[in-house]
Amino acid sequence: MSSARITADEFNRLAETELPFLAMLKPELVEFDRVRTIMRIRCDDVAMRPGGTVAGPVMMGLADASFYAIILANIGMVTMAVTTSLNINFLRKPGPGELYCRASLLKLGKRLAVCDAILYTQDLGEEQPVAHATGTYSIPPS
Amino acid sequence: MSSARITADEFNRLAETELPFLAMLKPELVEFDRVRTIMRIRCDDVAMRPGGTVAGPVMMGLADASFYAIILANIGMVTMAVTTSLNINFLRKPGPGELYCRASLLKLGKRLAVCDAILYTQDLGEEQPVAHATGTYSIPPS
Amino acid sequence: MSSARITADEFNRLAETELPFLAMLKPELVEFDRVRTIMRIRCDDVAMRPGGTVAGPVMMGLADASFYAIILANIGMVTMAVTTSLNINFLRKPGPGELYCRASLLKLGKRLAVCDAILYTQDLGEEQPVAHATGTYSIPPS
Amino acid sequence: MSSARITADEFNRLAETELPFLAMLKPELVEFDRVRTIMRIRCDDVAMRPGGTVAGPVMMGLADASFYAIILANIGMVTMAVTTSLNINFLRKPGPGELYCRASLLKLGKRLAVCDAILYTQDLGEEQPVAHATGTYSIPPS
Repeated sequence: MSSARITADEFNRLAETELPFLAMLKPELVEFDRVRTIMRIRCDDVAMRPGGTVAGPVMMGLADASFYAIILANIGMVTMAVTTSLNINFLRKPGPGELYCRASLLKLGKRLAVCDAILYTQDLGEEQPVAHATGTYSIPPS
Repeated sequence: MSSARITADEFNRLAETELPFLAMLKPELVEFDRVRTIMRIRCDDVAMRPGGTVAGPVMMGLADASFYAIILANIGMVTMAVTTSLNINFLRKPGPGELYCRASLLKLGKRLAVCDAILYTQDLGEEQPVAHATGTYSIPPS
Repeated sequence: MSSARITADEFNRLAETELPFLAMLKPELVEFDRVRTIMRIRCDDVAMRPGGTVAGPVMMGLADASFYAIILANIGMVTMAVTTSLNINFLRKPGPGELYCRASLLKLGKRLAVCDAILYTQDLGEEQPVAHATGTYSIPPS
Repeated sequence: MSSARITADEFNRLAETELPFLAMLKPELVEFDRVRTIMRIRCDDVAMRPGGTVAGPVMMGLADASFYAIILANIGMVTMAVTTSLNINFLRKPGPGELYCRASLLKLGKRLAVCDAILYTQDLGEEQPVAHATGTYSIPPS
C-alpha cells in the first residue's frame, strides 16, 4: 500500500540529470516510501557558512528535495510539480558531516500537497532537530 | 544616514571566502545601503530545475544572502548573525538569466532582525515578482 | 481598471452576516480597490493580551480578513475562496486603539492568490509596522 | 521530569482574566505537560465562516494559545513571552464541533522557543489533521 510509485533509483537519476544544484549535495534516499522519506546529504566545505555550521540554503535545499521526493513517491514521475511555498525554522547549528531529512505528507490533494520535515544529525538525534520545515507543492492537472 | 556600515566589496569578499555555496551563484550587489539592498545573480544550467525554471533553493539562497547583506549593512561585520526562519512564496516561474532580489528591513531589534524581499526579473519587472520572502535573523549579543 | 468587483458595503454585509468572529472586531474598509485595501479595527479590552498589547490572533484575524477582502475585490463575491496558508511576523507591540492593515496582491492566479500586508498604527506610522503577513488563498473552480 | 511548571488551572485562570479573545473560545487543556499539550475548543456559530467550516483566525488563535501554554509549562508563569512569528497551513475543512490542538516544543532556547502543532477533529483523527502550525516565541530576559 505504501510502496512508492517511483523507485529510489529513478529519483536519484532525476536529481542527477535535472536538479544539478541538488546533485552537488549528493543526496541519498535512506528510506523512500509513500508515508515517509529520509534523505541524507554529506555537508563539508562547500556547504558551510561562518561559524562552522551548515549554510541555510543547503538545509532549505535538502528540505525542498525531500518534499519533492515524497510527493513523487505518491503521484509518480510528475516532474512538473513545483514548490509554491516553503517555511523553515532553524533550531540548532549542525557542524560538518551527515545531515538527514525525514519528510512526511500532511495532505495530498488534487491540486496541492503539503509536507513537513525535520532535519537532524546522528549526534543530536531526531529529538533535537536542527531545523523544521513545511512546504507546499502545486500539482499540475493530469 | 543610510550608508552601509560595511562596503559592497567587503560583503563580496565575505561571500567568496566564507559562503562558498552562495559564491557559486556569483552574487553582485547592485544597490547596497542600510535601507535597501539589491542583489543580482545569473541563473543558468546549474541553477535550473525541470520545466526550464530556476530551482527553488537557488531563489531561497538569493533571498537569504540578501537578508544577510542588509543586516550586515546595518550592524557591521557581525558574521555570526544567523537565520532563524525563512518563509518564501513562489509566484511565477523565472526562466534562465539574471535574477534580482530587493531586500529591506522590517525591524532591526537588539536580538532579532526581520526582513522582506521580492525576487524579480527584468522581463517581468518588479510589479510581477517571481517570489516573495521574509526572514528572521538572530543577532548575537555584542 | 482598479475598481473593486464588489463594493465595500457588500464586503461589510458579508462580514456581519457570515464572519461573526471578524465582525466582533468591527472592521472598516478605509480604502478598497483591486490594487490595495486598507482595513481598520479598533482594539480595546477584548482584543488585548498581557503587556497591554494587542493579542496575536486579533492581528492574524485582521490580516486574514484583509486578504479575503482584496481577493473578493478582484474575483467578485466568491465567498468559498479559502485561506490555505498564513505567515505572520510580529514586529512591534501596538497598544490599544486603532489598528490598520494595508494589503496588496502579489499574485492572482486561476487557482491560487498570494497577498501580503503590513499592520500599523497611526502613532508609529507605516514605516514602523507592527506586523507583516503573507497569505495564500485557494480559489474554487468557477 | 516532564511535569508542567504551572498547573492547567493556572493557565485557565490566565486565559480567563488576561486573554479575553481566547477565553471566548472556552479552551480546555486535555493534556498539559512540558512535552506536549492538547487543547480543545468547541466551535459553533461564532467560530464559523462561509462554507460551514471553522474560521481561520479561530484555528490560528487555538494554535497560538497552545504554543503559549506549552511554553509556560516549561518556563513558568512568564506571561510576557510573546509570539514573534506564526505560520499555518490549512489542510482540511473542519465542520462545527470540537477542535483539538496538540502542540510540542521543537526548541527551548534562552531567547527563543519554537513550537509546532497539529489541529484535528475526532472525526478525521490525528492522521488527517485540519491544520499544521509552527510558532516562535520571544522569551524575556529573566
